Amino acid sequence: MLKKFPGVGGRTAERYAFQVLNWSPSELKEMAHLLENMREYLTKCDCCGCLKEAAKHCMFCEDSRRDPSILCIIASPREAYAIDETRQYMGLFHVLGVLSPMEGRGPDLLALEKLKKRVIDLSIKEVIIALDSTLEGDTTAHYLRQELGPLSVHVSRLAMGLPMGSSLEFIDGSTLAQAFSGRRTF
Amino acid sequence: MLKKFPGVGGRTAERYAFQVLNWSPSELKEMAHLLENMREYLTKCDCCGCLKEAAKHCMFCEDSRRDPSILCIIASPREAYAIDETRQYMGLFHVLGVLSPMEGRGPDLLALEKLKKRVIDLSIKEVIIALDSTLEGDTTAHYLRQELGPLSVHVSRLAMGLPMGSSLEFIDGSTLAQAFSGRRTF
Repeated sequence: MLKKFPGVGGRTAERYAFQVLNWSPSELKEMAHLLENMREYLTKCDCCGCLKEAAKHCMFCEDSRRDPSILCIIASPREAYAIDETRQYMGLFHVLGVLSPMEGRGPDLLALEKLKKRVIDLSIKEVIIALDSTLEGDTTAHYLRQELGPLSVHVSRLAMGLPMGSSLEFIDGSTLAQAFSGRRTF
Repeated sequence: MLKKFPGVGGRTAERYAFQVLNWSPSELKEMAHLLENMREYLTKCDCCGCLKEAAKHCMFCEDSRRDPSILCIIASPREAYAIDETRQYMGLFHVLGVLSPMEGRGPDLLALEKLKKRVIDLSIKEVIIALDSTLEGDTTAHYLRQELGPLSVHVSRLAMGLPMGSSLEFIDGSTLAQAFSGRRTF
């Protein structure tokens, strides 16, 4: 059963199981209770789709210090936390998901009308597409640009290029090409 | 002896050795001759520091189709080939090396006067710094910007951000921060 956790195989599951044997009855009860009621504790924010606890909206939508004129499009709620930790972004989020023809996720599942309504209602100035630089991410980004075109909003996408601490020696050709075409004044 | 090749350990060296046993005497002679005379065949281009064969200058300096007003700064000759293959760059190269206080490579080894002279003589419009996004690469890039400051040349650096085909899930925080601050109109 513990093998259901991502990246956990037989040996690790066994280590986990023996660890669990050492837990006190109250610890076991607490963990069991948390797991059982997780979907009630953590629900999706009606506004942006990020996770929220008891509050009306998520911690991002509730935070009045965040700039409500920038919207960052992400594929799933987990990205919001990673992006927030960089401290490079202080705007709002919007969980959109990605198109995946292979897995049968088409444009109807992206709830684009809701996004467009939010962009208009909040008078958003910039939409930042923070999706993976994969085939699915690229497809969704292009579709999104096309759909947002008629609205008067600036659309940008995360920079592609060399990851930090990397050596040119080990960079693939297409990343190197992107790093060249996207070079910045230094 | 074959273990001297990069990434070759005992087992691979053994495989190589047994392969060499199958070579004909003429093949052996040819390989031996090439290795022995490599440093005579391949010398450094006086102009840019890339590798050249018999010609007066290297294949990049000799190529009249290349734009002589853009100069790409690289750490070693091998980068020139990787960059050329991307077909995103059609300017000239300049092999500079990198500063490395740890290994005792200081500014005097970069031959900056030669670079400055080349920038002035060729009336270079843009210098693109294509060094690693490592501590050594960053240090050298900053030093270079400072030294080129007085010359009227635009200095740029390769974009940092998500490598192609990557998922946000596996990107480190500092790369994600760079990808945000360097986001591009899409």
